[in-house]
Amino acid sequence: MISAAIVGGTGYTGIELIRLLSAHPNVSLDLLTSRSEAGTRADEIFPSLRGISDIVFSDLGEDTLGALQKCDVVFFATPHGVAMKQAEALTQAGVKVIDLAADFRLQSLTDFEHWYQQSHACPELLKTAVYGLPEVNRAKLAEALVVGNPGCYPTTAILGLKPIIEKQNAQADRLIEPRIVIDAKSGVSGAGRQAKLALNYAETTDNFKAYSVEGHRHLPEIEQGVAQLLGSQFTHRIRFLPHLVPMIRGMLSSIHMEMTEAGTAIDWQQAFENAYASEPFIDVMPKGNYPDTRSVRASNRLRIAIHQDNERAELTVIVVQDNLVKGAAGQAVQNMNVMFGLDESLGLNFAPIVP
Amino acid sequence: MISAAIVGGTGYTGIELIRLLSAHPNVSLDLLTSRSEAGTRADEIFPSLRGISDIVFSDLGEDTLGALQKCDVVFFATPHGVAMKQAEALTQAGVKVIDLAADFRLQSLTDFEHWYQQSHACPELLKTAVYGLPEVNRAKLAEALVVGNPGCYPTTAILGLKPIIEKQNAQADRLIEPRIVIDAKSGVSGAGRQAKLALNYAETTDNFKAYSVEGHRHLPEIEQGVAQLLGSQFTHRIRFLPHLVPMIRGMLSSIHMEMTEAGTAIDWQQAFENAYASEPFIDVMPKGNYPDTRSVRASNRLRIAIHQDNERAELTVIVVQDNLVKGAAGQAVQNMNVMFGLDESLGLNFAPIVP
Amino acid sequence: MISAAIVGGTGYTGIELIRLLSAHPNVSLDLLTSRSEAGTRADEIFPSLRGISDIVFSDLGEDTLGALQKCDVVFFATPHGVAMKQAEALTQAGVKVIDLAADFRLQSLTDFEHWYQQSHACPELLKTAVYGLPEVNRAKLAEALVVGNPGCYPTTAILGLKPIIEKQNAQADRLIEPRIVIDAKSGVSGAGRQAKLALNYAETTDNFKAYSVEGHRHLPEIEQGVAQLLGSQFTHRIRFLPHLVPMIRGMLSSIHMEMTEAGTAIDWQQAFENAYASEPFIDVMPKGNYPDTRSVRASNRLRIAIHQDNERAELTVIVVQDNLVKGAAGQAVQNMNVMFGLDESLGLNFAPIVP
Amino acid sequence: MISAAIVGGTGYTGIELIRLLSAHPNVSLDLLTSRSEAGTRADEIFPSLRGISDIVFSDLGEDTLGALQKCDVVFFATPHGVAMKQAEALTQAGVKVIDLAADFRLQSLTDFEHWYQQSHACPELLKTAVYGLPEVNRAKLAEALVVGNPGCYPTTAILGLKPIIEKQNAQADRLIEPRIVIDAKSGVSGAGRQAKLALNYAETTDNFKAYSVEGHRHLPEIEQGVAQLLGSQFTHRIRFLPHLVPMIRGMLSSIHMEMTEAGTAIDWQQAFENAYASEPFIDVMPKGNYPDTRSVRASNRLRIAIHQDNERAELTVIVVQDNLVKGAAGQAVQNMNVMFGLDESLGLNFAPIVP
Repeated sequence: MISAAIVGGTGYTGIELIRLLSAHPNVSLDLLTSRSEAGTRADEIFPSLRGISDIVFSDLGEDTLGALQKCDVVFFATPHGVAMKQAEALTQAGVKVIDLAADFRLQSLTDFEHWYQQSHACPELLKTAVYGLPEVNRAKLAEALVVGNPGCYPTTAILGLKPIIEKQNAQADRLIEPRIVIDAKSGVSGAGRQAKLALNYAETTDNFKAYSVEGHRHLPEIEQGVAQLLGSQFTHRIRFLPHLVPMIRGMLSSIHMEMTEAGTAIDWQQAFENAYASEPFIDVMPKGNYPDTRSVRASNRLRIAIHQDNERAELTVIVVQDNLVKGAAGQAVQNMNVMFGLDESLGLNFAPIVP
Repeated sequence: MISAAIVGGTGYTGIELIRLLSAHPNVSLDLLTSRSEAGTRADEIFPSLRGISDIVFSDLGEDTLGALQKCDVVFFATPHGVAMKQAEALTQAGVKVIDLAADFRLQSLTDFEHWYQQSHACPELLKTAVYGLPEVNRAKLAEALVVGNPGCYPTTAILGLKPIIEKQNAQADRLIEPRIVIDAKSGVSGAGRQAKLALNYAETTDNFKAYSVEGHRHLPEIEQGVAQLLGSQFTHRIRFLPHLVPMIRGMLSSIHMEMTEAGTAIDWQQAFENAYASEPFIDVMPKGNYPDTRSVRASNRLRIAIHQDNERAELTVIVVQDNLVKGAAGQAVQNMNVMFGLDESLGLNFAPIVP
Repeated sequence: MISAAIVGGTGYTGIELIRLLSAHPNVSLDLLTSRSEAGTRADEIFPSLRGISDIVFSDLGEDTLGALQKCDVVFFATPHGVAMKQAEALTQAGVKVIDLAADFRLQSLTDFEHWYQQSHACPELLKTAVYGLPEVNRAKLAEALVVGNPGCYPTTAILGLKPIIEKQNAQADRLIEPRIVIDAKSGVSGAGRQAKLALNYAETTDNFKAYSVEGHRHLPEIEQGVAQLLGSQFTHRIRFLPHLVPMIRGMLSSIHMEMTEAGTAIDWQQAFENAYASEPFIDVMPKGNYPDTRSVRASNRLRIAIHQDNERAELTVIVVQDNLVKGAAGQAVQNMNVMFGLDESLGLNFAPIVP
Repeated sequence: MISAAIVGGTGYTGIELIRLLSAHPNVSLDLLTSRSEAGTRADEIFPSLRGISDIVFSDLGEDTLGALQKCDVVFFATPHGVAMKQAEALTQAGVKVIDLAADFRLQSLTDFEHWYQQSHACPELLKTAVYGLPEVNRAKLAEALVVGNPGCYPTTAILGLKPIIEKQNAQADRLIEPRIVIDAKSGVSGAGRQAKLALNYAETTDNFKAYSVEGHRHLPEIEQGVAQLLGSQFTHRIRFLPHLVPMIRGMLSSIHMEMTEAGTAIDWQQAFENAYASEPFIDVMPKGNYPDTRSVRASNRLRIAIHQDNERAELTVIVVQDNLVKGAAGQAVQNMNVMFGLDESLGLNFAPIVP
């Protein structure tokens, strides 16, 4: 059994982690820390956990680090900037770290400091941290000590572009024109479990809006993902516009591309099916399909549809996932499975909830 | 033109008042005060008002009272306890006061202090204040200086019971058994425009719950309403259980009563139709109907359905209203119309929004 | 492994059964029949099942019965009136039958024919059929060949009343006054997966309404459940009013009772905790709590809260469940576990989905 | 008073028209026809109209045309293909026709027959029909006999592009690169008032999906709108992807463009503000703003935000409207006002409903 701890855990990714780890056959969730909720049973805050988990939030003060060091893996479901302060002490004790916040997502120190407006607490460790997208980084993850769990939007964007970029890399002619528009939409749980007027039910429901076209922190992460996959000579430009959808969970990214003539010669449906044929959680939908977000609700699956229109030279890739599972906690568990050499889908192979 | 002011106005009853008063043919909305938002245009906080109203929130400090005293009527869309501190100075200057909070709802000082846990700032004025339910208090309202605008739940309860109580008063035999169950349901806007975790969209939507069966402040107000209408010998006992519905606006109260044999001899459908025949805003639905809350959305109408089952001796009265209109701001404007001798439905005769 | 079949299965209880049985460690879902969808993969209709189940809807025509007879258990997720036509042939072949419709719920033939307006196809079998509420009928279920899976509302009502009735039975004095008001609220999935204007999103959302106070078919089922538990001398009268809540899943029943003086002497919180102490799926909430429907979303748990007010002699029991799980498919699987002598919670012990 | 008739009127644009025309100071709604609902009061189908309108659906059979010919204006809130069969007889009698369906939207006969798969009943009249977008066609509308009321998506697209195209027309250099991506999102009421499984609440809520990237009928209408404004030499290519949002009303179109160097030299915020300075219903939001759909709920306003990023050469225009008002019935009334020489905002100047 893997002894696991969650630092934080009072937010939506926290409760999702508790739900997933409690049901994982090879994991024992031994420690759950929170300063604000120390001494409170998790099922007092989340009554849905009654009968599922007896775990209690604890704050061991100075002994916390020692307790965490006895675990095999520590998940950080904390705000940005927390994991990086403890990661070094943990890895030195042989504990693997999975940060669900952004401390280890951007591999460029400059980018991190620019976008998150703080200096990094362990720049050396950042160099060895692995971006936790198993479909891209599986081999590195198997050796990783510190994993930066991807943002929800970047997961859809990178996995929606990966087969295209790989095809491009294998070919001399340009397949896609330089500009890619990612018009993305997220359910409200993506904004976190917080008291905030803008998230009040009466403000949010029966309503739809865009936000952050200037400078959403997920844009550099998408660009890094695309560049990493491609090599540095790649020059595609990405326009990223997120929107808030009145639903709890779910994310849909519409990726709009223009094909070159060489691009139209490719059967992209087939290319995606080939690329993801052996992936346990990536589902390429049959031609002509429009996946809806509920088809992945509460599951770790990510579904992709390809709409190729050669006459107009348009290629549209539509990606859906549950932002709290494949976009956060489920992906973290998938990463853990890889890091510990387990079957990658262990504890994650449950059905979406429909209706 | 009536010169009107709103104190407060950054909440949901506030914006609803601004919407209604801006369109009222006999009103000029001249002053809108708020400490927290002083200097901000109302349409910056509520972009829906762009092009509708140019009014700016102001805080005149020590001059505020003087400015309010120049108006004809002041609406308080403030938390409990604010109106009572200014009401005396305003009425002395001949200004009429309509409080949308609870300062002037409970006419018993003891009740007020028990339920709202504060002493009353103007107990003398409280004695002359009128409970602002025109269908019950029309004559008194025409003379009122200070009006306590009813709570949303009490509006449905009192208007759902009024024809029964009047019938009872006209008759020697008991018509209804002593215990009345009011099982009430409210949309989320009833909880106000506030940053609160329990009101977060992801906490509230696709969810339903009861609350406050012990000691909701609207229960004494319902009891007072029933007792006032009946005279002090009335001994019905009321069980009141409110619930939170995942919808923005709307309130439905199911009132469950058991009829005596004398009660079953009455055609209650007819009794309600007679009682409300000349009311501009009370709509008794045809027999067998179930009014839904959206049938009154954004309007000042309140609809009532009567389900009488003589075999089981059960009488169920179902009442729907928009909690922000007939349950708050619309009723306040209706009160104002009565207080100023205007046609009662002036500025209020717009259609509900469906779908 | 238990070989299971589902007849029907294109509705919401159908997909929920597929989801649960696909994950059940001791079940092999071998047959799924549907006339309208014969030849179609289940995951074409429900893309959420992609990667979860390969099963195909089949219509074997005259051979269907033979194929069903080879299974160990057949679940009917069909409209009322289907199961009773096949139940005899199945039980004669030793196949156990669980009907999720109403054919075997009401044990009185007269009641069945009155409420469902059809004659019963196998009145003899009806006499031996068991009402599938394990918390009430566990012993009988262990021997049952045919099980009538309870309606969703009756599940909440009967389980919300059982400890009270048992207490009453053990005591001479009356504890509860004769009239019980059950004010119940259901999510929209309870109305089934159908094309119907009244269920259109734009008709249903941001809206709330009551329905069927006269003659909902669940009322006789509740009355039967209460009478069965109590013995025939019991004379409580039940008022049942259902409402439609704009949410997908979830049901909350508010049960309003008046205590006698003897009734107020009882600690009902304790009584409920004792009564359900060993039940795997019944959760009595701590005193003062208000369970929300999402706390059981997509799970087989049913939570109960007791609000006892001795001063007003009021006892309110609040019951929540997921109408598609404990109120339908989950309960059916729980029944199957009991019928086959398995651990009752096998395949059902997953966490609710929050948020 | 203008004597108005509505043909159809049992759908969502129908009830919205009834609501608007009932409150219009210069209109008398004299006739409402429907075959399926003949003899039924409108307020039986839409109880929200109780107390607002007494009108009854009628079917005069052979006399219908004669009755319509006595009106001044006839609105067709019917499926595609109905208005074109009666338009000629009506215009010959001097009656003005406003079709809210698509019979008179596409001015090319070939386009109409290709996209709507039927031959046109009055191709001669089609030539003189005016596309009912007052902000584009005001002068022609003043003279029009037959008006094709725009589709909801095209209204947002054309008004979101108009200032750009006008600027382009006034300048030699290309300002915008040839490819424009319109990623559009609509509330569910846009799909109409119909019994359809895909629109069932439980299918639609807490869910999000794209649809019809191939061949949505609004694409040729958008292209026609853009081409008309520009002149035939214009060669921009439009990618149009609609999505379904779980909300009742509201539409948001995100229009993604790439600026040329000449394009970045322009202050587009200023350009839009200038272009729409005198428009009563077009609101250009202050810089940096993200309008939400509720800010126009139930109103005839359309709000536009400009996000210009010169560094990335990206120009994003975000447009919101209520699909049933400015996107349908409100625009029809606005057109009527123009056609009859009334103040364009008469009967339309009401505030959006927030929350």
